[in-house]
Amino acid sequence: MTDTQQLEAALAADQAKPKANKLVIFTWGGDLDKVWPTLILATSAAAMGMETIVFFTFWGLFPLVRNDVRLTGDNWMQKAMSLLHRGGTQHLRLSQLNFAGAGPTMMRTLAADHQVASPQELLELAQEMGVRLIPCQMTMDLLGLTREDMIDGLEAPAGAATALAEAQDAITLFI
Amino acid sequence: MTDTQQLEAALAADQAKPKANKLVIFTWGGDLDKVWPTLILATSAAAMGMETIVFFTFWGLFPLVRNDVRLTGDNWMQKAMSLLHRGGTQHLRLSQLNFAGAGPTMMRTLAADHQVASPQELLELAQEMGVRLIPCQMTMDLLGLTREDMIDGLEAPAGAATALAEAQDAITLFI
Amino acid sequence: MTDTQQLEAALAADQAKPKANKLVIFTWGGDLDKVWPTLILATSAAAMGMETIVFFTFWGLFPLVRNDVRLTGDNWMQKAMSLLHRGGTQHLRLSQLNFAGAGPTMMRTLAADHQVASPQELLELAQEMGVRLIPCQMTMDLLGLTREDMIDGLEAPAGAATALAEAQDAITLFI
Repeated sequence: MTDTQQLEAALAADQAKPKANKLVIFTWGGDLDKVWPTLILATSAAAMGMETIVFFTFWGLFPLVRNDVRLTGDNWMQKAMSLLHRGGTQHLRLSQLNFAGAGPTMMRTLAADHQVASPQELLELAQEMGVRLIPCQMTMDLLGLTREDMIDGLEAPAGAATALAEAQDAITLFI
Repeated sequence: MTDTQQLEAALAADQAKPKANKLVIFTWGGDLDKVWPTLILATSAAAMGMETIVFFTFWGLFPLVRNDVRLTGDNWMQKAMSLLHRGGTQHLRLSQLNFAGAGPTMMRTLAADHQVASPQELLELAQEMGVRLIPCQMTMDLLGLTREDMIDGLEAPAGAATALAEAQDAITLFI
Repeated sequence: MTDTQQLEAALAADQAKPKANKLVIFTWGGDLDKVWPTLILATSAAAMGMETIVFFTFWGLFPLVRNDVRLTGDNWMQKAMSLLHRGGTQHLRLSQLNFAGAGPTMMRTLAADHQVASPQELLELAQEMGVRLIPCQMTMDLLGLTREDMIDGLEAPAGAATALAEAQDAITLFI
């Protein structure tokens, strides 16, 4: 082929809508039924070879708090919030059908019976598969959380601008 | 124009961010106030000539269950869930202002007064307009649902990887 | 460089997935914990030089209602809804941890202590930064709202098709 022919072929391929090979999830919800789709989509994308980033913000930050850590706010308000939302993946609630805790147990048992991985397993799998897990700096500040309160394997906390910059060439979902 | 000039013109047009002519909605919420925007956006996109796909997952699956079907789980947990979430578009709740069922009735009446189509009408319209409706296989498995329990006109159940592959060149919304 | 070399270089740059320099948020939730991320993301995107559009629909419309306005529905149903959802940014609830109003106050105080702007401040900042704020026409019709009931600085009300057309070359989030 001549140079011009090569260019024409390349251009034709290029004119098809380019496909994003990257997924950026903004995870806002901290309930079991939000964490689950976040991690199932993230690990599926990673398995497909996509660069995958999850930006955990607001309630979404709670699953990243270590199971053995109570939020250590430096004032009564943060302490009050910490009593209601225990961190870590063992205590996640359902946003619907919670039944004082029976609902999530039901879902977990259903999932185990049907060989669907638990949030804890999916979180570890995501880390192993190279999914980039980024906690929201502003939310950490609001809740008085430090890096030591969070599970291992997270990237440095970052803000909205970082997440948006990553989102510019990605599939984006706000969950 | 010479070949090179033609290529230059084509390239210039191409360098603008290409516009997606496709919409992929991940519908996670099964309440009336999530189903409505899903179907209004989906039918609007189809009317604009976009390829439109709705992937129904988690609570979002319930509106696709036939109105005359009770979930037929094979164990007590699925039966318990089925009592709480009746399938089909006649029984959808509002996530807020539910008032033991009075809220959704109020919204439906308001909508009818203002000539906004009901979820059932929008679902049928979406099917007529060629919107591709895909139920989530994993959710169906969790709830013990089979193809026979679902309304007609759906595509074959599929998983997260299928939905993500479709999302790669689309506008994406998680509702 | 020859014309062909120039074209080759331009083409190589172009083959990378193009980056969206635009953000379109569909804001569906009217609670404080949905309005906050909407406005933080919108103002961050505007600060990064992105064209930024927020399409306020469903419950998301309430924060745009003037603080001194009660919804003026022309029938008892709209009046009933208006009692429950007071418009404006002063009365926003949290979708979780509401505590009959104590939760939002707690969050606002926490935010003020940590120098995070209030929704009202962020809304004004967004307007100053040129974020385009578009109320959903259909929701306004459903709630019996007119332009006079809404805060200043909004664009003309529009529908789903307008929002989707803007979304075609943008990062999209449904919040």
